[in-house]
Amino acid sequence: MTATLELACELIRRRSITPEDAGCQALMMERLAHLGFHCERLRFGETENFWARRGTCAPLLAFAGHTDVVPTGPLAHWHSDPFEPVIHDGMLYGRGAADMKGSLAAMVTACERFISQHPGHAGSIGFLITSDEEGPAHDGTVKVVEHLEARHEKIDWCLVGEPSSGRELGDTIKNGRRGSLHGHLTIHGVQGHVAYPHLVHNPIHALGPIITALTDTIWDYGNEFFPPTSFQISNVHGGTGASNIVPGSAELHFNFRFSTESSVESLQQRVQQLVETALLNEEVKAGYRYEHTLHWDLSGLPFLTTPGALVEAAVEAIYAETGFEPELSTSGGTSDGRFIAPTGAQVLEFGPLNATIHKVDECVRASDLDALSRIYEGILSRLLGR
Amino acid sequence: MTATLELACELIRRRSITPEDAGCQALMMERLAHLGFHCERLRFGETENFWARRGTCAPLLAFAGHTDVVPTGPLAHWHSDPFEPVIHDGMLYGRGAADMKGSLAAMVTACERFISQHPGHAGSIGFLITSDEEGPAHDGTVKVVEHLEARHEKIDWCLVGEPSSGRELGDTIKNGRRGSLHGHLTIHGVQGHVAYPHLVHNPIHALGPIITALTDTIWDYGNEFFPPTSFQISNVHGGTGASNIVPGSAELHFNFRFSTESSVESLQQRVQQLVETALLNEEVKAGYRYEHTLHWDLSGLPFLTTPGALVEAAVEAIYAETGFEPELSTSGGTSDGRFIAPTGAQVLEFGPLNATIHKVDECVRASDLDALSRIYEGILSRLLGR
Repeated sequence: MTATLELACELIRRRSITPEDAGCQALMMERLAHLGFHCERLRFGETENFWARRGTCAPLLAFAGHTDVVPTGPLAHWHSDPFEPVIHDGMLYGRGAADMKGSLAAMVTACERFISQHPGHAGSIGFLITSDEEGPAHDGTVKVVEHLEARHEKIDWCLVGEPSSGRELGDTIKNGRRGSLHGHLTIHGVQGHVAYPHLVHNPIHALGPIITALTDTIWDYGNEFFPPTSFQISNVHGGTGASNIVPGSAELHFNFRFSTESSVESLQQRVQQLVETALLNEEVKAGYRYEHTLHWDLSGLPFLTTPGALVEAAVEAIYAETGFEPELSTSGGTSDGRFIAPTGAQVLEFGPLNATIHKVDECVRASDLDALSRIYEGILSRLLGR
Repeated sequence: MTATLELACELIRRRSITPEDAGCQALMMERLAHLGFHCERLRFGETENFWARRGTCAPLLAFAGHTDVVPTGPLAHWHSDPFEPVIHDGMLYGRGAADMKGSLAAMVTACERFISQHPGHAGSIGFLITSDEEGPAHDGTVKVVEHLEARHEKIDWCLVGEPSSGRELGDTIKNGRRGSLHGHLTIHGVQGHVAYPHLVHNPIHALGPIITALTDTIWDYGNEFFPPTSFQISNVHGGTGASNIVPGSAELHFNFRFSTESSVESLQQRVQQLVETALLNEEVKAGYRYEHTLHWDLSGLPFLTTPGALVEAAVEAIYAETGFEPELSTSGGTSDGRFIAPTGAQVLEFGPLNATIHKVDECVRASDLDALSRIYEGILSRLLGR
């Protein structure tokens, strides 16, 4: 077993179901301290985090990631214990193998080799590690970033170890992410018995044209870097359960994944307008004015890292290892990159294949972790080697 | 407090949320047994029912009703405890005050006064009382009626205590009812993460045009005896609760109250067609074929009681009490009358104002319950007095 695989296995053995860290960070800090990193444990609320830095000069290249993993799901469906790593047919199985303990191991071993070659490297290397990325993400990266900003410690380049690859290791780098905006619409009508339709105003009936209006809208066409903004209703609920009662209210929960072509304000305004227009039509038919409430929850603004030193170094290091050029993409879910990008850092996400993340039998090709470690090392060399 | 009000309060205090009886029937049977009724407790499944009869001869006039009530809805919206009756400004407040514990009390006290005046009345008086009228109505009146038919016990006239009045006590008698047909539609799509819209097919989105198509349809125009068929969606549900997951299915529950101008088959066919057309439009847009399932539950065919001895007695008794003639109507909800009418009985429904039934702050004018009791007594006198 290579050093990277051994460390990945040691991390997988620690049952760090979110928001638990289960000793993963102590293990990483021990290795980093040995390399001359100054390590700070940063606990916020119930969440374990750490910040480690080697060097005091700019530029600062930080690796970012999380030690927590999602729950296993039904254990009976796993072919082996999710917390007892197994290598079978070249694949390393275990919860977190791909998301993202394999990447964490590759970051640490990349630094070990790079520092042994370049003990007096340029700039600084950092590690920003949390244990609540898979949970609410309130006391993790966002708090560490605030802590660093308070003392004017600025990350120039950030490499997040999220599993960004699709079919082959290195085929995709995430150089940004869409924004995520949640909306919660409640329509208020008049409750009553289904048999007295003249005495009720059915809020579920009013939802029909609202759903149609919202799902038929093209919000934008995206741009060079972003796919078009997408809209999905995640939940619809109305009704008391009883089959003879028209409920007094009905609600929709929906989510936008939005490109930089739309803003939070423009989406909110357009939804408000579409809802009001659809309701007005209903109101004219019903001779009744429906009340509605609309609440918003912004979970992340879009961010984008345009080509520059970090993108160039990553593309070259991937090409050197794999022989092909990665695609730059902004698709997929949110990650903690959204908290780091607003500080002005260039942020990239690069890691192994994401095919099995959050699933049973999560796995990663064992040789991919070694290749990933060499790519991280290649990025370090290109940006901080001398 | 009059005897009728006192008994109504005692019944309201018993928390008989459907299908619970919570001791209401025991209380009624105690009062009836004291008057010489032979009482039979008839429990079917989990449902409490009773049949009580005084006399053995024809004709048999039966009072029919239910001790169960609908759930309270949000308690915070009530001005007083729904199970702690309160009289305020002449109104009696409490769940069941109007539907139909007030009527049950009025029936019992009407019999008490009538029997003290006519201990040797003609024919027989019956009580057919259930506790699942507000629920599935599978183990209530329908089973008691089967039980009576099996031993050839025939109801000639039946007075159901449902709240039939509109603006004033006595303005409306229900001499028939629309049919009631429940539908349950499930749309099946493809579950997935909101961030990967190309991998999901959102069944909630498909509901929009279906709701619109169903609520925009005119099903028929009614006729001399029946208002137009009405359609109401009682429940809509889709979503896992999580804000980032598109669910695999979404469902609608809806109800028709239908006139004799529509048949069960015609309604089912038209719904099937409207759903398929709406889905087809969605499918063309989405390039995906949604599966759907549609289940039906017929809760009652329409019925009609034409003018005869019972209608005449009721109209006269109401006129004597109120000074005006009631309107005969078939509007409003189904009642257990639909199970009794097919035996050949003449069935009327007559009770207090229905303005607040199934709502928060359900109430009835206290003096109306006393008047209702006198009207029931007047009907007894006209049909069985001697």
